[in-house]
Amino acid sequence: MAGYHQLFIPGPTNMPDRIRSAIDRPMENHRAPDFGELTLPLLEDLKKVFKTEHGRVFVFPGTGTGGWEATITNTLSPGDTVLAARHGQFSDQWIQLCQAHGLNVRVCDRSWHEGAPVQQFAEILQADTDHEIKAVLTCHNETATGVTSDIAGVRRALDDAGHPALLFVDGVSSIASLDFRMDEWGVDAAVTGSQKGFMMPTGLAIVAVSPKALEAAKTSKLGSFYFDFQRNGMSHQNGFFPYTPATTLLYGLRESVNMLLEEGMDNVAARHNRLAEGVRKAVDAWGLSLCGNDPALHSDTVSTVMVPEGVDGGAVVRHAYERYDMALGGGLGPLAGKVFRIGHMGYVNEVMLLGALAGVEMALNDCGAAIQPGSGVAAAQNHFRAAGAATAMAAE
Amino acid sequence: MAGYHQLFIPGPTNMPDRIRSAIDRPMENHRAPDFGELTLPLLEDLKKVFKTEHGRVFVFPGTGTGGWEATITNTLSPGDTVLAARHGQFSDQWIQLCQAHGLNVRVCDRSWHEGAPVQQFAEILQADTDHEIKAVLTCHNETATGVTSDIAGVRRALDDAGHPALLFVDGVSSIASLDFRMDEWGVDAAVTGSQKGFMMPTGLAIVAVSPKALEAAKTSKLGSFYFDFQRNGMSHQNGFFPYTPATTLLYGLRESVNMLLEEGMDNVAARHNRLAEGVRKAVDAWGLSLCGNDPALHSDTVSTVMVPEGVDGGAVVRHAYERYDMALGGGLGPLAGKVFRIGHMGYVNEVMLLGALAGVEMALNDCGAAIQPGSGVAAAQNHFRAAGAATAMAAE
Amino acid sequence: MAGYHQLFIPGPTNMPDRIRSAIDRPMENHRAPDFGELTLPLLEDLKKVFKTEHGRVFVFPGTGTGGWEATITNTLSPGDTVLAARHGQFSDQWIQLCQAHGLNVRVCDRSWHEGAPVQQFAEILQADTDHEIKAVLTCHNETATGVTSDIAGVRRALDDAGHPALLFVDGVSSIASLDFRMDEWGVDAAVTGSQKGFMMPTGLAIVAVSPKALEAAKTSKLGSFYFDFQRNGMSHQNGFFPYTPATTLLYGLRESVNMLLEEGMDNVAARHNRLAEGVRKAVDAWGLSLCGNDPALHSDTVSTVMVPEGVDGGAVVRHAYERYDMALGGGLGPLAGKVFRIGHMGYVNEVMLLGALAGVEMALNDCGAAIQPGSGVAAAQNHFRAAGAATAMAAE
Amino acid sequence: MAGYHQLFIPGPTNMPDRIRSAIDRPMENHRAPDFGELTLPLLEDLKKVFKTEHGRVFVFPGTGTGGWEATITNTLSPGDTVLAARHGQFSDQWIQLCQAHGLNVRVCDRSWHEGAPVQQFAEILQADTDHEIKAVLTCHNETATGVTSDIAGVRRALDDAGHPALLFVDGVSSIASLDFRMDEWGVDAAVTGSQKGFMMPTGLAIVAVSPKALEAAKTSKLGSFYFDFQRNGMSHQNGFFPYTPATTLLYGLRESVNMLLEEGMDNVAARHNRLAEGVRKAVDAWGLSLCGNDPALHSDTVSTVMVPEGVDGGAVVRHAYERYDMALGGGLGPLAGKVFRIGHMGYVNEVMLLGALAGVEMALNDCGAAIQPGSGVAAAQNHFRAAGAATAMAAE
Repeated sequence: MAGYHQLFIPGPTNMPDRIRSAIDRPMENHRAPDFGELTLPLLEDLKKVFKTEHGRVFVFPGTGTGGWEATITNTLSPGDTVLAARHGQFSDQWIQLCQAHGLNVRVCDRSWHEGAPVQQFAEILQADTDHEIKAVLTCHNETATGVTSDIAGVRRALDDAGHPALLFVDGVSSIASLDFRMDEWGVDAAVTGSQKGFMMPTGLAIVAVSPKALEAAKTSKLGSFYFDFQRNGMSHQNGFFPYTPATTLLYGLRESVNMLLEEGMDNVAARHNRLAEGVRKAVDAWGLSLCGNDPALHSDTVSTVMVPEGVDGGAVVRHAYERYDMALGGGLGPLAGKVFRIGHMGYVNEVMLLGALAGVEMALNDCGAAIQPGSGVAAAQNHFRAAGAATAMAAE
Repeated sequence: MAGYHQLFIPGPTNMPDRIRSAIDRPMENHRAPDFGELTLPLLEDLKKVFKTEHGRVFVFPGTGTGGWEATITNTLSPGDTVLAARHGQFSDQWIQLCQAHGLNVRVCDRSWHEGAPVQQFAEILQADTDHEIKAVLTCHNETATGVTSDIAGVRRALDDAGHPALLFVDGVSSIASLDFRMDEWGVDAAVTGSQKGFMMPTGLAIVAVSPKALEAAKTSKLGSFYFDFQRNGMSHQNGFFPYTPATTLLYGLRESVNMLLEEGMDNVAARHNRLAEGVRKAVDAWGLSLCGNDPALHSDTVSTVMVPEGVDGGAVVRHAYERYDMALGGGLGPLAGKVFRIGHMGYVNEVMLLGALAGVEMALNDCGAAIQPGSGVAAAQNHFRAAGAATAMAAE
Repeated sequence: MAGYHQLFIPGPTNMPDRIRSAIDRPMENHRAPDFGELTLPLLEDLKKVFKTEHGRVFVFPGTGTGGWEATITNTLSPGDTVLAARHGQFSDQWIQLCQAHGLNVRVCDRSWHEGAPVQQFAEILQADTDHEIKAVLTCHNETATGVTSDIAGVRRALDDAGHPALLFVDGVSSIASLDFRMDEWGVDAAVTGSQKGFMMPTGLAIVAVSPKALEAAKTSKLGSFYFDFQRNGMSHQNGFFPYTPATTLLYGLRESVNMLLEEGMDNVAARHNRLAEGVRKAVDAWGLSLCGNDPALHSDTVSTVMVPEGVDGGAVVRHAYERYDMALGGGLGPLAGKVFRIGHMGYVNEVMLLGALAGVEMALNDCGAAIQPGSGVAAAQNHFRAAGAATAMAAE
Repeated sequence: MAGYHQLFIPGPTNMPDRIRSAIDRPMENHRAPDFGELTLPLLEDLKKVFKTEHGRVFVFPGTGTGGWEATITNTLSPGDTVLAARHGQFSDQWIQLCQAHGLNVRVCDRSWHEGAPVQQFAEILQADTDHEIKAVLTCHNETATGVTSDIAGVRRALDDAGHPALLFVDGVSSIASLDFRMDEWGVDAAVTGSQKGFMMPTGLAIVAVSPKALEAAKTSKLGSFYFDFQRNGMSHQNGFFPYTPATTLLYGLRESVNMLLEEGMDNVAARHNRLAEGVRKAVDAWGLSLCGNDPALHSDTVSTVMVPEGVDGGAVVRHAYERYDMALGGGLGPLAGKVFRIGHMGYVNEVMLLGALAGVEMALNDCGAAIQPGSGVAAAQNHFRAAGAATAMAAE
């Protein structure tokens, strides 16, 4: 099959050549005297991506799931209570992880069309006057549903209740793409992986941790060694790791952070918004709707599109893959068959996205959805042309 | 700027990862005893790409222009007469090259909207009863105008006149993409470069030569050393080169030929036709026309699109580059400002091309051409969906 | 500084171009319908590297430490007793990991110049008639000391005692290099990482697990989610992962396993022995000795060389790095300053190793050790020439 | 076969990863408005490598042979007389090239153990009072024999005779490695290729031309188009090329020039001298001699070693390749069987070279030359240790 494979899943995302080149290098000694020249500034610069000054960043060979595990096992003890909402595949898995580690999870079950229930959280926290809840877990961007939750709102709920629980955020498909403000929002642990907004291959868990969480790590009773904050932190001080780190990926991460900071995190977020808005205009033009029931929470990194009655979302994804060499995301869990997902995170531009929308139009039509050919493309074009002109003007 | 740069010029073309990986390797000894294991089968397999059994293929570090020079300086003598038509930038340059080498070029000046003048050639050859014309030069696919000429027709003109002149073909933007039949068409030298249908970086001139041309090389008086067929041929017999060959590019060419032969040259040509036809449907839908005045000669590798009155083709190309990170071809020579060119050669697929058409629509509109957004995309989608279904049926 | 950096540490090891190319690829969808075409045969072929038919292989984004954690947390419960020897940096760390997870470790403290104490293990196991010991932990090859332990002997100790404890082996610097026989030795979990014998970048933990260990995983009470065998195993059955796998590294691992199986695991072990023996001949010629006090246990993957009185091993390593652009391993823990380590694992050949020995000779002399220049090189040359002739004869 | 292939031929040379990465990139439009940002500074910086302020540099897809052809065909006319010495394979081929282009070559035949005959040249030039000789051709470094000629001496011979002939220098295996002073030595054309001192893949001919040679190009009657200085020069002024340039190699050349200029051309030459001297010490220690009969002319980029009576130099090279995976250069022309060549040009360091010398020792012994194992290695070590200390002192 000729032509580049088209990757429009919500992670892994398209890898820039700058990053690919940075990774493609020989191995080296991770205990060399000058190894810290790579790692120390990198760990420092990563803080800018999370918008934290007070926090500390850990980078493990692992994935976002590993980052969750690091967060939980470093800060909590068996039997501790945590508060979490279940409104998508990934918020659900985090709950499962907590349960596997013997935590008591107070689960708020919500529709998969909603974000984290800020109001419900607020009520529970107000009622928890004994402060049994040790941590609140929130998924900033549910990759399964394309719903972005209101982390600032959760922080307000904690503050309004005067509640000391830690605030842990799954930022796997938000950090390095969406506006994320660790310090301002009072986030105590923010978890992500390398293969989303960082535009890298999978393989690194990246976790930013507040001083409060590091303090909690001193008394945590859950076992932890590979992901141990204290053991890693001791090594990190000199730019080293207590195990052999994934040096090639660290060089990739260095280049990724360079690219992000060169653009500026606010510009990165604005770019994601501009591109996502084009996709949303296309979905509107097709007469379809997004999974999230509140437009204010529609994600700028992934759009989960409801397929029309009678069309199988899974078939659309398979057909796009086999016939048009294009990878879309399928529906997970209860959304299986009912949606497909378009990832528009990371290294994407207008022309790539218009190609993707055109491909989606063909796949939808081939699978029985009567979409006006070119309609979504035209709507996105109009948005991109207008938004671009605005950007150009602003830059003058 | 985020996202992959979009390359839709008529060469260099998009490089497949298989080829890119093959090239990215350490250097090695080109005089190693086993070097022929790479080169001998490669030179043999290249013949299949040209569809020649009797010819011989030479690969030089160089470009298509170098291939022209190799052809001319190996087979002709100062003062020799050659017949050529001028109907585009590249047919014109080949004439200049002949003149620089002291040849007498009988030039048929034609409109840049036409192909090679088969009928005029026939008349000249019929009239050349003394056989002063030693060679006929034809550009199979004028990269500047997107017009494909009728090589079989030129062969018929020679045969009908019983004329012994050599037939030299510039196949730079046709070979390895369009249907090309060296033996069947009686082509004596077919010239191309690595950066078009072979989907490689620039850097190799590839020339296939008939036994008749090799015979002519024995008495040619034009000086030649670097490109000398006999000197190179002697070395090639053992898989070597008389100079240090570009080994990394030879490995790339090996992978390129693998890809082409795996797909089959007829399938390669059919694919180019299917994709090109989508572009032509889009141009129609936009209400624009192609440069070539005979639809039968519209190129399957590059479409040269006439811009509407009042629109500057050069501005469209610049704007697409600066605003949408997309490379289109500009107008050359007398076509400057009047056209832009879309390359659809080599490693391209439907979704890539639809993205390009969408980008062109935005650039045209931004530059003052009133194009219905999405109209070209929709026309191409309809063609691709129908053509794909046909392909699928044929494959059953 | 000109010339390639010389990497002679005991991991990460030199990466072959075949593997480097395999890793250098675009990202793709790990949930694509054909993803199992990569993963299923890979997981199956990995078993041949471990020489197991009955076991099951897990591949995690992680490191060897992560592989230890996976083994422990999947199979044991808080308060369980395990038996382990401490005779090097890595055997020590594994003990620490167990303690961090609340296990009761019966530690046999030994000299760092010895291997695992088979006889002492035998006595303890014989005495443990209540079978309190749930697992025996052994480090097959202590990367810190260059001592290879007798795993078959530990198995015999278990069998002779009729003891049902699980046998867990740290094979980080042995598997895919040394002779390793999981089934024959009755190993229940064998742990390694990608950056040693697999000749890959760091980033994958690779763990092979026996049916008996998988059975134990059903009742284990230590928390586990990211590394959970059951959760991963369910996904693996269809070639998938419960998280986003490190696809680029999986392609590298595919190529690594191809290379290993093409050579044959017995040939791989023989090659390591041949090269290591050359290093040992050089050490002898220098008048120096290896760390391990029993020549039968000297490692074929890393040689830990004792520096002469008055010479600082750390200075030798630093000097080699700064002056000769060569990475050697330093002394860890109590061996700091007393040794340097030469890694000869993975993708190494005679000429590379002779260069390394020559570099070591210069560094030693520069640092005050009076080594006869060229003496070690000559001794290794003699061995390589003789061993090569023998190999050639054997191949006839 | 495990381990890196060892490349010690006099070109192509070992490619640094910085250059390899720079080349490994997607294709792009060579007519993009910003393309000159790459090419213009590159063409300017190349002048520093040639040490010319007044000259102009041309870069063609081609090889050194192509560079010779460019030089000759741009500046001379059929029947012109040139003066040249034949004392090696490459000086011989340049003569052949001139003859193929109809030039009258006054050949000074010399032993292949000598450099260019400065005194004989002086006498001929003195005698040529009619100035029939239009150009003097000199091979700065004969890659076949490892003899470096005295270009400054040839310039003096021209000046002393008050002779206006152009001075053309083959610097294929000298430029970017040895001390080369285009302006100071009054060189009118200096030719090299990418695969030697530039540490790049083969594929670029690089030619620096003096104003006097450019003036001569205006009246030259030899045909030239692909390599035409005027046609290329016109395009170069804006950073473009009259054909599609080899963009990936141009990026590699950019990185190569960066590396050379960062180190400084004088330091580059000093480094080559230091490493070459180590090789010469080894050859001495082996009791062998170099091809060049004047130690003052022994090349710092390649050592051509005479094998002892009864040993076949070709067998040594083949054996080293097959048994030790190491590429050495063989003897060319009359030197076939009598020598082998060690390339020590470009990206090489002490440890690499010591490995090569150790490999040579094994191959020589295996092939019947009774060499004391380790003797050459020891001699080189002693030189490297002393020279390094000197360098370190100088740097203080």
